[in-house]
Amino acid sequence: MSDREGSTSGLPETLSWQGGRPGHVRMVEQTLLPAEFVEIDVRTVDEMVDAIYRLAVRGAPAIGVAAAYGVLLGVQDRLACTATEVMAALENTCSRLEKARPTAVNLFWALERMNARAESARRTEASGDEIIAALFEEAMAIHASDKDTCQRMGVHGAELIQDGARILTHCNAGSLATGGIGTALAPIYEAARQGKKVHVYADETRPLFQGARLTTWELQRGGVESTLITDNTAGWVMREGRVDMVVVGSDRIARNGDVCNKIGTYSVAVLAREHGVPFFVVAPLSTFDLTLADGSRIPIEQRPAEEVTEPFGKRIAPTDCQVYSPAFDVTPARLISGIVTEEGVMHSPTSTAIEAVFRKAGHEIPDLASPDAVKGSGALR
Amino acid sequence: MSDREGSTSGLPETLSWQGGRPGHVRMVEQTLLPAEFVEIDVRTVDEMVDAIYRLAVRGAPAIGVAAAYGVLLGVQDRLACTATEVMAALENTCSRLEKARPTAVNLFWALERMNARAESARRTEASGDEIIAALFEEAMAIHASDKDTCQRMGVHGAELIQDGARILTHCNAGSLATGGIGTALAPIYEAARQGKKVHVYADETRPLFQGARLTTWELQRGGVESTLITDNTAGWVMREGRVDMVVVGSDRIARNGDVCNKIGTYSVAVLAREHGVPFFVVAPLSTFDLTLADGSRIPIEQRPAEEVTEPFGKRIAPTDCQVYSPAFDVTPARLISGIVTEEGVMHSPTSTAIEAVFRKAGHEIPDLASPDAVKGSGALR
Repeated sequence: MSDREGSTSGLPETLSWQGGRPGHVRMVEQTLLPAEFVEIDVRTVDEMVDAIYRLAVRGAPAIGVAAAYGVLLGVQDRLACTATEVMAALENTCSRLEKARPTAVNLFWALERMNARAESARRTEASGDEIIAALFEEAMAIHASDKDTCQRMGVHGAELIQDGARILTHCNAGSLATGGIGTALAPIYEAARQGKKVHVYADETRPLFQGARLTTWELQRGGVESTLITDNTAGWVMREGRVDMVVVGSDRIARNGDVCNKIGTYSVAVLAREHGVPFFVVAPLSTFDLTLADGSRIPIEQRPAEEVTEPFGKRIAPTDCQVYSPAFDVTPARLISGIVTEEGVMHSPTSTAIEAVFRKAGHEIPDLASPDAVKGSGALR
Repeated sequence: MSDREGSTSGLPETLSWQGGRPGHVRMVEQTLLPAEFVEIDVRTVDEMVDAIYRLAVRGAPAIGVAAAYGVLLGVQDRLACTATEVMAALENTCSRLEKARPTAVNLFWALERMNARAESARRTEASGDEIIAALFEEAMAIHASDKDTCQRMGVHGAELIQDGARILTHCNAGSLATGGIGTALAPIYEAARQGKKVHVYADETRPLFQGARLTTWELQRGGVESTLITDNTAGWVMREGRVDMVVVGSDRIARNGDVCNKIGTYSVAVLAREHGVPFFVVAPLSTFDLTLADGSRIPIEQRPAEEVTEPFGKRIAPTDCQVYSPAFDVTPARLISGIVTEEGVMHSPTSTAIEAVFRKAGHEIPDLASPDAVKGSGALR
C-alpha cells in the first residue's frame, strides 16, 4: 500500500447496534458536528423518530439502517409474546417510524424489508420470539449490505474520476449519510485510495450547513482535500473552470431517472449543464422508487422557517418574515450524466435502462403507485 | 392617493450629513439589522474606511455617497490652510478611502467627482477654504443626485413590472444600498406606489445574509410582501413557476454590459435563462466603468474565510477548513434582458447601446484602462 492508500480509515461509524438482544443504537450526534464529536445512545422508537426528524442521523441510506434498527427497538422487549402480538408491535413501530421524514425512500424500503421478513417467518408458523430473531437478522443484513453497497458504488464510481479531478458536491452524501463509506463520496474515497489526487468543492448547503459541518469534516478525516464554498458560489467556480465534475447523492429516484436530493441540487445540475460539467448521482438501488413514473409525485418535505431565519438561535430575519423552505428538489433525468449504483454506471438514465438494471439484479418491477399510495405522502410533518 | 400609494415612506435614511461644517455622517449600522436598528456617527476618515470595509454601509451607490462624505471628514478641519495643503489632505483622504473596497466603482466615481471639483476650484485660484466649500457642495450634490437617480430608475423600471408580478432579487439593492429608494428595489417600490401588487422572493445571500437581514426588513418597512428563501432554492422556485422576473443591482458594469454583482448573481442569471425568466439589472450610470472593455478585468474582492465558517461567531466548519469566498461574480451581458438606468431601459445591452446612452447624457467616453490602471486593483485587502 502506498502512503495515500487506506486513507479513509479515519471515518467514523455513523451508527451501529450495540449489544445483542436487548440492545440499542449508538449514533454520531450529527447536529453537533464539527464542533463536538458526540455519540448518543438511542433506546426507544420515539427517540429514533426524533433523531431522524431533527437530523441527528440523516442521509437516505443511513435513515434506512436507522429505521431497521428502530424496528428492533420497538419489538425487542416483547418477551413471551405471541406471533400476533409481535406483528402488531411491528406494525405500530413502522407506522411511527415512517412518519419521521417523508422524502427519503430508503426509510420505507427498509421498513418493507423488515415487514417482508416478519411475514415470511410468520408463514412458517414461527413463534413471536422467532419472528423477533428474524428481524434482528434482517436489520443486521440491511446494515451489512449497505456497507457492501457503498464499497461497490465506490469502485464503480471511481472509474469516472480522473487523477487530479476537482469535484463539486452538495450536502453530505458521505460516510455520515450511510452505514458505510458513503454514496457520492464513496467514489472519491475509493479514487483517493487508488492513489488518485482529488480535490472536492463542498457547497455549504443551507439551511442546515451539512456541507460545511459534515462533508468538510469527514473529508478531512478521510484524508481528502476540500474547499468550502457558499451555495451561491457554485456557478462561479464552474464559470472559472475550477470544477471537472459534480457528484451528489439522492433521497429518492423515480422510475424515469428524475432525482430527488437536497434543495439546491437542481440549481447545481442546471449550472453543470451550462458549463459542460458532467453531473453524476450515486445511490444504491434502495433509493429508487419504481412506483413513481417521474419525480413530480415525490413528496417534498417542508422544513420549519426557523431553520432559515434562526441559524444557531441567532435571528437573521425580521419577525413575521415569510419563508419558503423545501428540504429537497427534483433534478430531471435529462440533466443527469449518469447514475452510479452498486450494479454499475447507468449513463444518461432512462426508465428502460433502470428497469433493466433492476431485472438483472433479480428485483421485480412494481406497479405504479396510485396517488394516495405514494410512500411518504402520509407524513405528519 | 390610494391606500397602497406612498407605502415606501417607512424606509429609513441610510446615511446623511449632520450639521454644517464641521459636521459628521450619521448612518444606519447595517451589520446589526434586523435585530437592532441603530444609527452610528462617523467622524473620521478611518472610521469611514472601517464602516465601508465591515459593511456597516454597503451597496454601490451608498458607498459612493459615503466616500464623498468621507472626503469632507478628511478636509473639513483644515482651517486657514493654503489651497496646496487642502489638495494634499484631499489626496491623502482619497487614497485611504479608495482602498476600503475594491469592486464597487461608485466609490472611485465619487472620489473622482470630488477631485474634479477641487481641481476646478483650484484653477480659479480659490483659497483652501473655498476649495473645502466647493467639496461640501459637491458631496451634497452627489447625495441629492443619487436620490433623484433612484427615483428615475424606479419610474423607468416600474414599466417592466406587471400587476401581480413575483420578482426574485439577490442581496440587497434597496434603500439601504443607496442614498435614495434603491436600485433593484426602486422599480418595485414605484410599482407598489402605483398600486400594482408585487411579491418579492428574497435570496438570503450568504455569507453575510444581506437578503435575509436587509431586503426582507426594508421591504416590510416599505410595505411590500416578500418571501425569504435560501440561495440554493432560487432555481427550484423558478422551476416551480413562482418567479416572473429577476431584478438585481450591480457594483460595476463593464463597457460591453457585463455586470459585476454580489456572488450568486451569475448563478441566478443562468437559472433565469434556463427558465425563460427575464433578468434585469438596475444601476445608475455611476456604476458603469467604461474603462473596462468587459467584465473579466473587474477586481473581485475576496472576503475573509471566517464570514463563511463562523456566521455570528458560531464555528460551522472544521478548523483548517479551506474556503473560497469571492464577494462578487460577473454575469455576462448575453444573460441580461436589460439594464435600467436613470436614463431609461437598455434592452439586451451592448457596448454600442451603452456608449450611446452615455453620449446622450452628455458624458465623455473614456479610453480603456491599461492593466495597472484598473480602479480598485490597488486595494489593500
